[in-house]
Amino acid sequence: MTTGFFGDISKVKYEGPDSTNPLAYRHYNPDEVVAGKRLEDHLRFAVAYWHSFAWPGGDPFGGQTFERPWFGDTMELAKLKADVAFEMFSLLGVPYFCFHDADVRPEGSTFAESAARLDEIGDYFAGKMEKTGTKLLWGTANLFSHRRYMAGAATNPDPEVFAYAAATVKSCIDVTKRLGGVNYVLWGGREGYETLLNTDLKREREQAGRFLSMVVDYAKKIGFKGTILIEPKPQEPTKHQYDYDVATVYGFLKDFGLEKEVKVNIEQGHAILAGHSFEHELALANALGIFGSIDMNRNDYQSGWDTDQFPNNVPEMALAYYHVLQAGGFTTGGTNFDAKLRRQSLDPQDLLVAHIGGMDCCARGLKAAARMIEDKALSGPLEERYAGWTQAGAQAMLKGDRTLEQISEWVLKEGLDPQPKSGRQEFLENVVNRYV
Amino acid sequence: MTTGFFGDISKVKYEGPDSTNPLAYRHYNPDEVVAGKRLEDHLRFAVAYWHSFAWPGGDPFGGQTFERPWFGDTMELAKLKADVAFEMFSLLGVPYFCFHDADVRPEGSTFAESAARLDEIGDYFAGKMEKTGTKLLWGTANLFSHRRYMAGAATNPDPEVFAYAAATVKSCIDVTKRLGGVNYVLWGGREGYETLLNTDLKREREQAGRFLSMVVDYAKKIGFKGTILIEPKPQEPTKHQYDYDVATVYGFLKDFGLEKEVKVNIEQGHAILAGHSFEHELALANALGIFGSIDMNRNDYQSGWDTDQFPNNVPEMALAYYHVLQAGGFTTGGTNFDAKLRRQSLDPQDLLVAHIGGMDCCARGLKAAARMIEDKALSGPLEERYAGWTQAGAQAMLKGDRTLEQISEWVLKEGLDPQPKSGRQEFLENVVNRYV
Amino acid sequence: MTTGFFGDISKVKYEGPDSTNPLAYRHYNPDEVVAGKRLEDHLRFAVAYWHSFAWPGGDPFGGQTFERPWFGDTMELAKLKADVAFEMFSLLGVPYFCFHDADVRPEGSTFAESAARLDEIGDYFAGKMEKTGTKLLWGTANLFSHRRYMAGAATNPDPEVFAYAAATVKSCIDVTKRLGGVNYVLWGGREGYETLLNTDLKREREQAGRFLSMVVDYAKKIGFKGTILIEPKPQEPTKHQYDYDVATVYGFLKDFGLEKEVKVNIEQGHAILAGHSFEHELALANALGIFGSIDMNRNDYQSGWDTDQFPNNVPEMALAYYHVLQAGGFTTGGTNFDAKLRRQSLDPQDLLVAHIGGMDCCARGLKAAARMIEDKALSGPLEERYAGWTQAGAQAMLKGDRTLEQISEWVLKEGLDPQPKSGRQEFLENVVNRYV
Amino acid sequence: MTTGFFGDISKVKYEGPDSTNPLAYRHYNPDEVVAGKRLEDHLRFAVAYWHSFAWPGGDPFGGQTFERPWFGDTMELAKLKADVAFEMFSLLGVPYFCFHDADVRPEGSTFAESAARLDEIGDYFAGKMEKTGTKLLWGTANLFSHRRYMAGAATNPDPEVFAYAAATVKSCIDVTKRLGGVNYVLWGGREGYETLLNTDLKREREQAGRFLSMVVDYAKKIGFKGTILIEPKPQEPTKHQYDYDVATVYGFLKDFGLEKEVKVNIEQGHAILAGHSFEHELALANALGIFGSIDMNRNDYQSGWDTDQFPNNVPEMALAYYHVLQAGGFTTGGTNFDAKLRRQSLDPQDLLVAHIGGMDCCARGLKAAARMIEDKALSGPLEERYAGWTQAGAQAMLKGDRTLEQISEWVLKEGLDPQPKSGRQEFLENVVNRYV
Repeated sequence: MTTGFFGDISKVKYEGPDSTNPLAYRHYNPDEVVAGKRLEDHLRFAVAYWHSFAWPGGDPFGGQTFERPWFGDTMELAKLKADVAFEMFSLLGVPYFCFHDADVRPEGSTFAESAARLDEIGDYFAGKMEKTGTKLLWGTANLFSHRRYMAGAATNPDPEVFAYAAATVKSCIDVTKRLGGVNYVLWGGREGYETLLNTDLKREREQAGRFLSMVVDYAKKIGFKGTILIEPKPQEPTKHQYDYDVATVYGFLKDFGLEKEVKVNIEQGHAILAGHSFEHELALANALGIFGSIDMNRNDYQSGWDTDQFPNNVPEMALAYYHVLQAGGFTTGGTNFDAKLRRQSLDPQDLLVAHIGGMDCCARGLKAAARMIEDKALSGPLEERYAGWTQAGAQAMLKGDRTLEQISEWVLKEGLDPQPKSGRQEFLENVVNRYV
Repeated sequence: MTTGFFGDISKVKYEGPDSTNPLAYRHYNPDEVVAGKRLEDHLRFAVAYWHSFAWPGGDPFGGQTFERPWFGDTMELAKLKADVAFEMFSLLGVPYFCFHDADVRPEGSTFAESAARLDEIGDYFAGKMEKTGTKLLWGTANLFSHRRYMAGAATNPDPEVFAYAAATVKSCIDVTKRLGGVNYVLWGGREGYETLLNTDLKREREQAGRFLSMVVDYAKKIGFKGTILIEPKPQEPTKHQYDYDVATVYGFLKDFGLEKEVKVNIEQGHAILAGHSFEHELALANALGIFGSIDMNRNDYQSGWDTDQFPNNVPEMALAYYHVLQAGGFTTGGTNFDAKLRRQSLDPQDLLVAHIGGMDCCARGLKAAARMIEDKALSGPLEERYAGWTQAGAQAMLKGDRTLEQISEWVLKEGLDPQPKSGRQEFLENVVNRYV
Repeated sequence: MTTGFFGDISKVKYEGPDSTNPLAYRHYNPDEVVAGKRLEDHLRFAVAYWHSFAWPGGDPFGGQTFERPWFGDTMELAKLKADVAFEMFSLLGVPYFCFHDADVRPEGSTFAESAARLDEIGDYFAGKMEKTGTKLLWGTANLFSHRRYMAGAATNPDPEVFAYAAATVKSCIDVTKRLGGVNYVLWGGREGYETLLNTDLKREREQAGRFLSMVVDYAKKIGFKGTILIEPKPQEPTKHQYDYDVATVYGFLKDFGLEKEVKVNIEQGHAILAGHSFEHELALANALGIFGSIDMNRNDYQSGWDTDQFPNNVPEMALAYYHVLQAGGFTTGGTNFDAKLRRQSLDPQDLLVAHIGGMDCCARGLKAAARMIEDKALSGPLEERYAGWTQAGAQAMLKGDRTLEQISEWVLKEGLDPQPKSGRQEFLENVVNRYV
Repeated sequence: MTTGFFGDISKVKYEGPDSTNPLAYRHYNPDEVVAGKRLEDHLRFAVAYWHSFAWPGGDPFGGQTFERPWFGDTMELAKLKADVAFEMFSLLGVPYFCFHDADVRPEGSTFAESAARLDEIGDYFAGKMEKTGTKLLWGTANLFSHRRYMAGAATNPDPEVFAYAAATVKSCIDVTKRLGGVNYVLWGGREGYETLLNTDLKREREQAGRFLSMVVDYAKKIGFKGTILIEPKPQEPTKHQYDYDVATVYGFLKDFGLEKEVKVNIEQGHAILAGHSFEHELALANALGIFGSIDMNRNDYQSGWDTDQFPNNVPEMALAYYHVLQAGGFTTGGTNFDAKLRRQSLDPQDLLVAHIGGMDCCARGLKAAARMIEDKALSGPLEERYAGWTQAGAQAMLKGDRTLEQISEWVLKEGLDPQPKSGRQEFLENVVNRYV
């Protein structure tokens, strides 16, 4: 027996590329084996509670457009929301979901009440998870919506807000662990500033470092086996956020000795707001050893804010999954759709259609990436390009066995005059286009 | 006896704010004492050889506009160029200059010849420096213009290019040391990539780390007392440069254990290309302990490339110097104008006028900043805003004497419900406007 | 007797540049005569109801931060809001205010009720305007917040929405006329699209043209003497808005024969979102004969969305007012602050302080601009630069008395080889810095 | 007998999607009939002389990387360049090419000599065109590279530059006509400004209007049957160009009564620099009746300058061709690759490979677009969305048969309360993904 929200719809099935059924998968066959693994196990899809069930459709110039029977502030409605959410997880056949505390329970009048409500919903989720088999990719605390956090959570000028945020994170890790969550995420939407005129950047950075260290310690202490993830974003809502991008987060982790403890959850939209391509952020995280998970939603290239759209450009997604696979694929991470419907997409079916389209594109992208890897389509030419570095003299330079003076002498003695070789970018772009 | 390039012009003098003489300073009086130091010693102005004497006025859609008697590829013309350059340094009364090897000598047909020419010009400079009293703020190697560097210098796929670059840097540090340079700069204009399809990001990053380590070792070995500076830039000429911004450079330095050895040279134009305000980069470098020097030129806010214009917005510059002074002011660093005339500014006088205007704006900015500091105009409210953190409980949290659980218990026990306080941004902006 | 909202504060006075009173003007002396006109008559300041009294402080990631006694949906609260608003107008001594219908009255359950409520508030305003002397710069209809407008107002695929919007504009022009408003504004926040996939751009453009024509006709018919203004904005809330920038609006007006009937209300923030400087939009509107009014608020140069901050950079503002004065100054237009407090600026005083700072900067900017004009500081060199065009042959070319062939023959016969002259940009930037 | 530049290579053939031959077409079969027309006749490919044969590989931070046997300033080398160019046109089988005067002949020491050289090369081209069957898509004058144009061509403050530019355009139209060119293009790379401080925007706009009118008159007079095209670009090389985007050009054309005489040549890279998607510019030009031709090269989304890369994203290209086909397909226009190799792509083969890849992507894009049109995949839902406007009452409003008052009365009488309907964006995006 269902809520009826999605009408008379049965579980979405794989029907193959020629299907024109908008409620069928054309490319995502969970059981298809690619590079030795089932697609479902490669992609590890998750639906985000936040955008799909909690967001009312507002933007800075307009209010609610969605009319959902579960909107409101009671625990009863929170449970109806959960009923619909798990119905959708099952209809789509996604293995995971994600949530913020604020998405799933109404704020209480005290911290204690908020925490108790979270626990109560946690129990409700546990029952549904057992029944449907849906698992938790990650939990997280909303430390940005309430006015108490307007000037930051961990980085607030008021230590009581720091404390309140810390207690909130504790309650969220607790429920995440209880529900078998395989990651815990921190996104610092208010950990930044609106103006340097009222901000002690150094102090706030240290507050953030302390906060994260406490979280890591606590997770260890309670035996949380998941990964702690930071989600970089350069700006919005604030003018400048401390977790600007992967490189910035890495420097921060190194500074506080946390680079082995914490990984990153990378989002395409946040990457491009920071001036990077998505694959740059993925490749860099991989190079730095901090790749964790992805939010596979896109921003509009002509918009300067976070549009959080469902992904739809397969060639770009193929390159993203190429880097995911180069990083060894997901371990605890997965493919989360931190994506919202356009606010004009009012119908319940739009929710399903959007996820189906996104999942299909992911499947196409991953399959293309896997074939490129199998064929060494890119890695072959890459190896060849750097082949000079495998030679002994080059290795000696790289390992630190040569000083600047020795190298200089060598250049002079040999009269070195290295000649450039073609970088073959267009050739490689054509190669990629054979796969997408 | 002069080259006559600037015509019949005498040394630029301070004439006070009411002067309308375009060839006089209105705000820069080198001997004026501000916050206990002469303005000249605060600002430590430098002229960049590159833009002012080597750039022909081209852009991606047009060629040379400037007609300078020293343009050409002979050592004789290189010396004429030096004659004019030092004339300008003297006319302006700037204490410092900066240069790349490629700015000051024609490329030789071999590495040895290029190096010998650099030495010869170095001697020529030494004589002029002694005569005029102009000092060297920094030297640097041009590892980006020649086609051999098209795919990187330290990060080139060809180890011979790495070697060639290393030898080149050695020759440049040598001459910098010989001329008493107080810093040595590395700007990685080609240390990046055009496409990830042909790039092994991890490997290239390691090449860059090795290269920098060698440079640091060599500088120590020869007793170079100056500061090694990296100049961050996010992109242009390449799609993506490894020294993206201050935060990225910091992570890189930490990774290779160089964060005590190397500092940053921050440019406004590069900051905004990376999505940051100039003062952000300055404040962050200060917070991280890697603030070194500045390139005080601006980019146009509506252009997506490096316009390298002379600065002219005093309110913005006041905030920049505010952070320079907060960092303790310059030690070895200074205010370099890495700025080029607009390509339509053809006249010799334009070179003088542009520097005079820039220097005057810097002087206004620094004086405003010094008064804000003296009055605690911003630091007073800042201290008050964070006052809560001076209390014992807050300090205990910050120092790591409290666990997440303890804090959570405290929140529950006290029923904490922290209330937000006004951030007073507009008030603080008005305060700044009392000074600029 | 006051509402008490602003506490025990008296009318803000001009105290001169040395005042440190945050609640005094330092530069805005309404009675100071500049270029033959009182400052008040030059600047024609207006406060926007929308941002200052209706906006709750939310952003896309957080909810209400402001707690105002008038928040709520009753007519009683709407009147309390009006009481406080007019108190602020009086305290500040601003001559004008502006409003959307939705700012001033709660939405009714039917169109008729909404309209009746607007009329009722209109009467309430009329009384207050008479008592305080505050006048109406413009009225406008909010055709973007309600979900009915999510796919456009005039450009909606549903003709009933077009009709509803038309009726709404009628009610707003009516009240604007009744209150003696000197302009009527249309901002097409939803007149654009989220995706071309579901958009008939040509058809929607024609709907917009028809709508505007009807508005112009109606305004004439009822004898509205004010100016109809379009406020260009390139995007946000939608991906793409039809009134992208001044040039686009001009083409649109020409297309529908409205270029003599409608002018533009230009906002700095909208200008820079479209890739233009503010002064570009002002200069262009002046050149095209459609300059009307300004929204003198700024966007943050590092943020890709509309931040609507109070202005504070005097050098930029001086250039803006330079172009306003070049256009002959305001006729019906004025300087509106379409600016909102930062959401952390919680205190009633912040509202006053923000406006005071903005007004002071405007006064400084305008006074600097007036002096530049008086001194012909920029217009003198400009005239000289184009002097060649005053000659007979040049005039003949410009007036169309020469064909391409004739000119070609002349070039050949004379062996023309025109030589470029310095554009003197840096010199002119220095000149401006003598005034700001 | 060939120049040997491309080595031992034969004409590039269509080998079908499974080919892995980098020198074969996989999707572009010129004779394949799509929507009733051969692919060659749909796509009308052209190679640009400028980027492929004249550009030396420099960027703002580095010089020449390409070593081409024809680089140099003699007519003999100009002919060698032409030999290689026509070899490439033949190898690729492209039906068209395009050129600037400056691409094909060295600048003479006088205007007369430059013009004579252009004529001589014109004759040389004529012979080659006859032999190879390659046709001329458009000719154009380079009015931006030489220093005489640094402050504009038509919009120069010096009327002699205006004249020189006019004479140059005459010489270029003449040769274009003689060679049977089907279009003539004007790109105003210097028709803009670096700073408003030295610019009389209104005057320059009028100069531009006059110039264009003369060009149109001359083209008519000599019986040039091709289309006159303006190529919009917002900025770069200058800070601001007058032909900012399609909407701006339209307003300009309307102002000077040229909207029936002149069309636009739209480039993806220029579109995104102006903040638009490529398909926006195409759809708008179509709506305004000024669609002419396209430059099918892309810019990098993370770079703020014109990267002019070969296109490679098929889904985006499919949407572009969708709008080309909606506009009725090309008449005189075509698909020009105004694209340059990356400066690291040094090898002759790179030139071929880049064009092959671009052409294949175009073919895929166009075929997908044609199928979408055939299936009414997008137009069907579009029609349905706007169906309300076909009703009589709606038509009356749109045609101007209803006044604002009448509509208002209707709304009141009927108690209209229109309810929004889903915009179905995600559904439509999924539909598109069935075709690409």
